[in-house]
Amino acid sequence: MTLHPSMFEDIVRRVLDEDLGEAGDLTTEACISADSRSRAEMVVRSPGVVAGVAVAEAVFVTVDPSLHFQATLSDGEAVAVGTVAATVEGRSRSILIAERAALNLVGRMSGVATATAQLVAAIAGTKAVIADTRKTMPGLRALDKYAVRMGGGHNHRFGLHDAVMIKDNHIVAAGGISAAVRAVRARVGHTVKIEVEVETLGQLEELLEVRADIALLDNMDTDTLAQAVQMVGGAMVCEASGGITADTVRAVAETGVDVISVGWITHSVRQLDIALDFV
Amino acid sequence: MTLHPSMFEDIVRRVLDEDLGEAGDLTTEACISADSRSRAEMVVRSPGVVAGVAVAEAVFVTVDPSLHFQATLSDGEAVAVGTVAATVEGRSRSILIAERAALNLVGRMSGVATATAQLVAAIAGTKAVIADTRKTMPGLRALDKYAVRMGGGHNHRFGLHDAVMIKDNHIVAAGGISAAVRAVRARVGHTVKIEVEVETLGQLEELLEVRADIALLDNMDTDTLAQAVQMVGGAMVCEASGGITADTVRAVAETGVDVISVGWITHSVRQLDIALDFV
Amino acid sequence: MTLHPSMFEDIVRRVLDEDLGEAGDLTTEACISADSRSRAEMVVRSPGVVAGVAVAEAVFVTVDPSLHFQATLSDGEAVAVGTVAATVEGRSRSILIAERAALNLVGRMSGVATATAQLVAAIAGTKAVIADTRKTMPGLRALDKYAVRMGGGHNHRFGLHDAVMIKDNHIVAAGGISAAVRAVRARVGHTVKIEVEVETLGQLEELLEVRADIALLDNMDTDTLAQAVQMVGGAMVCEASGGITADTVRAVAETGVDVISVGWITHSVRQLDIALDFV
Amino acid sequence: MTLHPSMFEDIVRRVLDEDLGEAGDLTTEACISADSRSRAEMVVRSPGVVAGVAVAEAVFVTVDPSLHFQATLSDGEAVAVGTVAATVEGRSRSILIAERAALNLVGRMSGVATATAQLVAAIAGTKAVIADTRKTMPGLRALDKYAVRMGGGHNHRFGLHDAVMIKDNHIVAAGGISAAVRAVRARVGHTVKIEVEVETLGQLEELLEVRADIALLDNMDTDTLAQAVQMVGGAMVCEASGGITADTVRAVAETGVDVISVGWITHSVRQLDIALDFV
Amino acid sequence: MTLHPSMFEDIVRRVLDEDLGEAGDLTTEACISADSRSRAEMVVRSPGVVAGVAVAEAVFVTVDPSLHFQATLSDGEAVAVGTVAATVEGRSRSILIAERAALNLVGRMSGVATATAQLVAAIAGTKAVIADTRKTMPGLRALDKYAVRMGGGHNHRFGLHDAVMIKDNHIVAAGGISAAVRAVRARVGHTVKIEVEVETLGQLEELLEVRADIALLDNMDTDTLAQAVQMVGGAMVCEASGGITADTVRAVAETGVDVISVGWITHSVRQLDIALDFV
Amino acid sequence: MTLHPSMFEDIVRRVLDEDLGEAGDLTTEACISADSRSRAEMVVRSPGVVAGVAVAEAVFVTVDPSLHFQATLSDGEAVAVGTVAATVEGRSRSILIAERAALNLVGRMSGVATATAQLVAAIAGTKAVIADTRKTMPGLRALDKYAVRMGGGHNHRFGLHDAVMIKDNHIVAAGGISAAVRAVRARVGHTVKIEVEVETLGQLEELLEVRADIALLDNMDTDTLAQAVQMVGGAMVCEASGGITADTVRAVAETGVDVISVGWITHSVRQLDIALDFV
Repeated sequence: MTLHPSMFEDIVRRVLDEDLGEAGDLTTEACISADSRSRAEMVVRSPGVVAGVAVAEAVFVTVDPSLHFQATLSDGEAVAVGTVAATVEGRSRSILIAERAALNLVGRMSGVATATAQLVAAIAGTKAVIADTRKTMPGLRALDKYAVRMGGGHNHRFGLHDAVMIKDNHIVAAGGISAAVRAVRARVGHTVKIEVEVETLGQLEELLEVRADIALLDNMDTDTLAQAVQMVGGAMVCEASGGITADTVRAVAETGVDVISVGWITHSVRQLDIALDFV
Repeated sequence: MTLHPSMFEDIVRRVLDEDLGEAGDLTTEACISADSRSRAEMVVRSPGVVAGVAVAEAVFVTVDPSLHFQATLSDGEAVAVGTVAATVEGRSRSILIAERAALNLVGRMSGVATATAQLVAAIAGTKAVIADTRKTMPGLRALDKYAVRMGGGHNHRFGLHDAVMIKDNHIVAAGGISAAVRAVRARVGHTVKIEVEVETLGQLEELLEVRADIALLDNMDTDTLAQAVQMVGGAMVCEASGGITADTVRAVAETGVDVISVGWITHSVRQLDIALDFV
Repeated sequence: MTLHPSMFEDIVRRVLDEDLGEAGDLTTEACISADSRSRAEMVVRSPGVVAGVAVAEAVFVTVDPSLHFQATLSDGEAVAVGTVAATVEGRSRSILIAERAALNLVGRMSGVATATAQLVAAIAGTKAVIADTRKTMPGLRALDKYAVRMGGGHNHRFGLHDAVMIKDNHIVAAGGISAAVRAVRARVGHTVKIEVEVETLGQLEELLEVRADIALLDNMDTDTLAQAVQMVGGAMVCEASGGITADTVRAVAETGVDVISVGWITHSVRQLDIALDFV
Repeated sequence: MTLHPSMFEDIVRRVLDEDLGEAGDLTTEACISADSRSRAEMVVRSPGVVAGVAVAEAVFVTVDPSLHFQATLSDGEAVAVGTVAATVEGRSRSILIAERAALNLVGRMSGVATATAQLVAAIAGTKAVIADTRKTMPGLRALDKYAVRMGGGHNHRFGLHDAVMIKDNHIVAAGGISAAVRAVRARVGHTVKIEVEVETLGQLEELLEVRADIALLDNMDTDTLAQAVQMVGGAMVCEASGGITADTVRAVAETGVDVISVGWITHSVRQLDIALDFV
Repeated sequence: MTLHPSMFEDIVRRVLDEDLGEAGDLTTEACISADSRSRAEMVVRSPGVVAGVAVAEAVFVTVDPSLHFQATLSDGEAVAVGTVAATVEGRSRSILIAERAALNLVGRMSGVATATAQLVAAIAGTKAVIADTRKTMPGLRALDKYAVRMGGGHNHRFGLHDAVMIKDNHIVAAGGISAAVRAVRARVGHTVKIEVEVETLGQLEELLEVRADIALLDNMDTDTLAQAVQMVGGAMVCEASGGITADTVRAVAETGVDVISVGWITHSVRQLDIALDFV
Repeated sequence: MTLHPSMFEDIVRRVLDEDLGEAGDLTTEACISADSRSRAEMVVRSPGVVAGVAVAEAVFVTVDPSLHFQATLSDGEAVAVGTVAATVEGRSRSILIAERAALNLVGRMSGVATATAQLVAAIAGTKAVIADTRKTMPGLRALDKYAVRMGGGHNHRFGLHDAVMIKDNHIVAAGGISAAVRAVRARVGHTVKIEVEVETLGQLEELLEVRADIALLDNMDTDTLAQAVQMVGGAMVCEASGGITADTVRAVAETGVDVISVGWITHSVRQLDIALDFV
C-alpha cells in the first residue's frame, strides 16, 4: 500500500481549515513581511520510525505551491534523535502557517509506525507478523494503516466491507459456528475471505469441522494458543488477539501463530516528537 | 462549548464510510436476520471521565434512525469500571454495523477527558487551570477541545485565526518583542487577544514594557516560573508550557501561574476502554 | 449486501440537481397548483426483475418528505407487464418533479437485475454462479452490484482495493506467475484473496504449483475450460470469463466452473421499462 | 457544447474512489515496481464513434499528473476496429490503476455517440435532426448529452429548469392546453421556450390556436405525423417522439418533422469496446 | 419558481459555519442556561416586500430541529413597519445562535424584493415587465432570482447555459449579426431561445433580417427605444437595458418595450431592516 | 489578513457553477472559434478603492489555467475612472465565459472597500478606527471582511466563535451585567476577549465595576458617547455602534471612541462599476 494523494487530500484540507478558519494566521501576517524567505528543517526529536513525510509535504504545498519541500529520508526508516527528515524553503509566512498542521500529521503517523516497529522487532525470528485492527483513529484509518505498514506490520481488513469476521454475536444469531460460516459462504462473493473468532478450544474444534480461512484466537493464554496452533495444523491461518503488549508479544509469537493483531498501535500511541527548526 | 451536531456530522459520516465502503457489512448481513432486534449497553471498562456520548449516539442514529439510544450519564462524569454510559436498542444489524465506529469515537474522546481530569485533579486548590494546545489529532480538533472541557480543562485558541501568539520566529522577523507586539496591535482587530512566548526572564522584562494580554512562559523551571509570576504582578495572564507531566504539574501550578497548557492530553493519550455488551 | 442509504444518497441528490438546476421545474410550478394532490402508480411495462424501489423512494422523499411512498413488491421479484411496483401519494408538484429522476434509477437497476436473472436462469441446475465485474456504469458501482445480487448473481471484488487480481501485465512485470503470487503474498494482509488470470492450460499448470485462491480462466473455449476444471481438481475456485453471452452461458456452466463473470450485465444492458401512471 | 473540466471532475474522482477505496490497488503495488515505466495504447475494438477521450485523459492525469497522455483522434470521429484513440506513457503503476476507470468512461460515452451516429446516418438527407431526452444515465447527464452531440445529434432540454414541457398531467391539471400555455406564459421568463406534448390531431388543433414554440407529437404513426406536420405549417417546431428505433427512424424523418427525440440512445445503449494495450 | 430546500440548504449551512466556526457561540453558552426557553418575533423595521421567510426558518431549524417556527405572512407581501413576519419559539440558546444568520438572509432577500417591487409599481399600467440580470450577488443567484419574482419581477436567463445572448464580442467574432445568429441556430438545441444585443437602429435592422427571439436594446434613449419597438412590430420580444433607474423606468416602459432588465436590483441594493425581538 | 486561496476557492467554483450549469456557455461556443485569442482590460468605471483582483484572477484561471492574467494595481488602491486594474489574455472563449463571474466578485468587493474608505477618510485625524460587523453578505464573510481591510477598516470578530459579545438578552438571562461577565470568565478560555453592549450610562457604570475588555456603546448620541468615553477613562476599549452614516461618523469619532462599527458597509453597499473591455 503506497500513499496516494487521494488518501490524504481531504485530511490535509481539513487540518488547514481547523487552523486557519476564515481569518487566517493573524500573527504571521502582522509580524512577517510578505517577501521574507526562510529555510527550515523537519527534525526528529525522539528515536523512532518516520512515516508520512509526503503528507507533511502536502500540507506545505497546499498552503503555498511555491514552497520547495525536499524529503531527506524515506517512510519506514528508523531514525536517531536529530535526524533531518525533510527541508522546506520559500516564503516564511507559508512555512509558519503550515508548520503545526504538518507536524501534527507526521508526528501521529510516525508514532504509529514506531509502536509497530517495536512489536515487529520484539518478534524477530518467529514466523508471526504484526497486524493492525479496526480500532484506528476516527477519520485517519487509511493513514494509520499505511503507518503500520511503514513500521513493518501488516494490514488486517480495512473495514466491514472487505472481509468477513464472524464474532460471538454473529455466531449466536446464526445458531452456531458452522451455521454462521455456511450462511456467509452462501452470500458473499468468491473473492472474500472468512475469519471466525473463537475463545475456546471447543469452539475451535467446531470451527475446524467447517473451516474458515482464518481463525481468530481471542484472549487465549500462550499455552492455549500453542494447543490451538497444533489443532489447526495449517488448515487455517491462526491469528492471536486480545491484550497483547510489548512485553508479552514475543511469547505469543513463539506459540506458532501466523498473525498477532494489536489495537493499541493505532488507538493509544504516543506521537513521535518531530519539530521544525528554522535555519 | 457545547457539542453541536455540526461539530461531528462530518466525522461521523467519515468513520462510517471508512468501515462500510461501498459493500457494507458483509458479515452482519449474512449472519443476522433483518428482523432480529437487540439491546446493548455501552460499558466503561477502565475508570475515567466519559466524553462524547452524543457523538456515539450520532453514529448509531446515522446508521439507522429507528435505533433507540439512551444516554445514562452526562459527558464529564467520572465513572468506575462497569458503569453503563448508554443503552441502544433496535435492529441487531444496525447496532452491529455502528458498534466499532461509535466506540472508536467515544473511546478517544473519553481518553482525552480522562487525561485532562487527572491533571486537573493534580492541581486542585491552586488557582491554575489546565489548557489544551493546537497539538490535536488531525481532523478532530473540535472534538478534542470539547473533551478537554469535559475533563475540566480550558481551551486555548482554536487555531491561528482566533488569537495572536507571537513566537520566536515572529520576534526575530519583526525585530524584537516590542516591535512585534506593535505590529500586531496596528493590524488585528480590537477583539483579538495577544500572547507572547518568552523563554527567559530577560525576554519577559522586554515584554513587560510593551505588555501583551498573555505571557507564555516556555520551558522554564519552577523557580524561574515563580520569579516570572512575581515580575508580571498581575499585569498579564501567565501561562506555563513545555514538557509538563502528571508528576510535575502540581509544582508548576504552585508557582502561581494562571494557566498550564499541555500538548500530550490531545496528541498522545490512551483511549478509555469502552465496550458494547449485548444483553 | 443490503441497500444502505449511504449507498445512494449522493446519487439521488445528483440526479435531482441534474434535473432541477437552480431554477427548478418551470412547467410544473406554472401549471400545477401548490395544493393539488395526486396518487400515482409505478408500473412495470416489460417483464423482468425489479431492483431499486428504495432508491426511487429516496428520490420522491428527498424532493418532498411529506410524500407517502409504498412499495408493493420487494427488490428481486420477477414481475409481469402491468405489475405495480409501488404507489406514491401527496403533492402533485412533488410527484411530477421527482418522476423522471426516480424512473431513470429504478429502470437502470431493474435492467441490470433482469439481465442477471436471465443468465442465472440459463444455468439453473449447474453448480456455477453468475458474477459481475468492475465494468460497471461510472458512478453507479454500488447500485449496479446490488442489482446483480437482486437478479440472483454474486458480486466479484468491488474494486482494486478488496481483492488481488493478477493479470498478464502483472505477471510479465513480476517475472512469471509464481513470482507474482509470491510478491503479493509477502505484501497483502492475510484477509485478502488472490486471483490469477490465465489464458492457457500451460499457465494454469504454472499457477497450480504456487496456488492462488481463484483461477480466472480467461477466454477459453468450453473444452479447454472443462480440462482446466479437471486439472484444478478443487484446489482453487475456477472462474470463467470473456465473451460469454446468454446463448453460451449454459455450456460454460456445464464445464464445471464455479463462477462465470460477465461484464455486459452492467455495462451494456437495456433499462427495464417502468412508468409512473397517475390514477 | 464543449467538454469543460467542471463537467467531469466530480465523476472522475468518484470512479477512482469506487476502484481504489482506502487501500488502493493491492495487486499493482505488490507486483509492479515503483520505477517501472510503460507505454500503452487505447485501441478501439469495435467500429463506432469515439467520445470522451478528454475524460479518459482526466482519469489518468488525476491518478498521476506525470503521465503523458496523447489523444490521437478527436471526439466525434468515426473509427474502424484497431484505431488507436490515444496513447499514455509513464509509471506502469499509474497506468494500471487508471485503466479500468478510464475505459469505463470512454466506452460508455463512445457507446452513446455511436448509437446516435447510426440514427443520424439513417436520416441523412432529410431535414430532421436526432435529439436526446432526459432519460440519461443517473449522474452522467452532462457527459451523455455531450456524447450525443459528438454523434451528430442535438440536445433537448437539460432538465426541468431550462425549458417548459407541458405534458398530459399538466394539461389536465391546468384545465386544457390553452389554459396551460397561458399559465406558463404568465410566469416563466421571456428567455424560456415552451413545448407542448400532444397525442392526437385534435389536441394539436387546440394547441395551434394558442401556439407554443414546439409541438411534441407523441407516439403517432407516420401517417398521423405527416398530417400533423402539414397542420402546423411551420408555425411551431415539430418534434416526434415515442418508440422510435433504428428501423423506423427514416420513415419518421420523412414525414417532415424537424426533430426526432430518442430515449434509448442514452438509457439502453451498448458500450463501445475500447481496450488498453501495453506496447 | 418556488423556493426549494435544495436552493438554500448549502447557503444555510455556510452562513452557520461562518458564524459558529468550530468553537460555537461562546457567549450564549456561557450566559444562557441550556433549559431556558424563549419566544421571539421577526419584525420588519422598514416598509417593503418580504422574501425568504422559509430560508430564515431553515436557519433556525438547522440549528435546532426542535424550534417551532411559524411564518405569519407569505413571501411577496408588502408590509408596513412593525409587521411581524414570523415567530420562533423554543430553546433560547438555539434562537440566539441562529438569529444573525437568519436575519442576514431574509434581510438581503427582502431588500431585493423591495427594490424590484418599487420598479414594478413605477411601470404599473404599461405592458412592460421588470426582469433581473446575471449581475447577482456571488453565490446567491437562485435566491436573488427568487426574490425578484417575489417583488413582482420576471427572471431573465439563469446563466450562460439556459439561453443564448449574442453580444458585441460574439458579433464581431462571428462576422456580423446574421452570421452569429446562423451559427447559433446550427448548434443549439431547439428548446433554447436566442437573444441579440443591439446598440443602434442600424444593428436592429440587420437583426430583423435574420430574426432572433429577443432583441436586447442596449443603452438607447427613450426616443430610440420607441422607434425600435415600432421597427420590430411584434416580430421579436423587445428588451430595454442599461442605466435604468427608479426615476427613468416609467418613461422606458412607455416606449412600448416588453421587458426592462435592471442589474442594480440584485447587485447594489439596500437590505430590508428586519430584526428579532424577544417577547 | 491576506487573501488566501482557501478563502475564495469555494465561492469561485460556485459562481462558475451558477453561470455554466451543465450545458456551459451556449453562445460563446457557437459564435467564437476555439482558437480565437483575445486581450481584455478590467477597467474601473467609477472612482473608488479596488479589492479582490486576485479573486477575479482565480475565476479566469479556474475556467482556463492557460489564461495569462496580470494585475496592474494592488488591492486597497484608490483609483480614478478609467484605471485598468488588470489585463487578461488568451483563449477568447475562456475570457468570455469567466467575464461576468469575475466582475460580479471584484465589483462587490470593491464596493465594500470603497464604502469603508469613505468612512475612514471622514474620520481622518481622530484616533478612532472603522470596523465591520457580522452583518455581512451570506456566504461572503471572509471576502467582505478582507475588503473592509482593503478600504482601511478593521475587522470586528469573525463570528460567534472568536470573541464574546454580551448583549441585552444575555444580560437579562444571566441576571445582570456583572453576573454575565463572571459567567463568561469562568468558562471561556484565556485567549478570548469579552465585549459588553450597554445602552445607557447606568449600564456602563455597572459594567465598569466588573470590567470587560470592550464596551459597546450602542445607539448613543454624541453627547452621551463623550460622557461614556470619559467614564471609561481608558479602562476598556470604547466602541460606538448603531445608525452611524457617512454624515454622522466624524462627530462620533470626535467623541473619543476607539472603534466605530458599521453594518451597512457590508450589507447595503453599491457595487463598484468595473467592466471588461476587449482591446
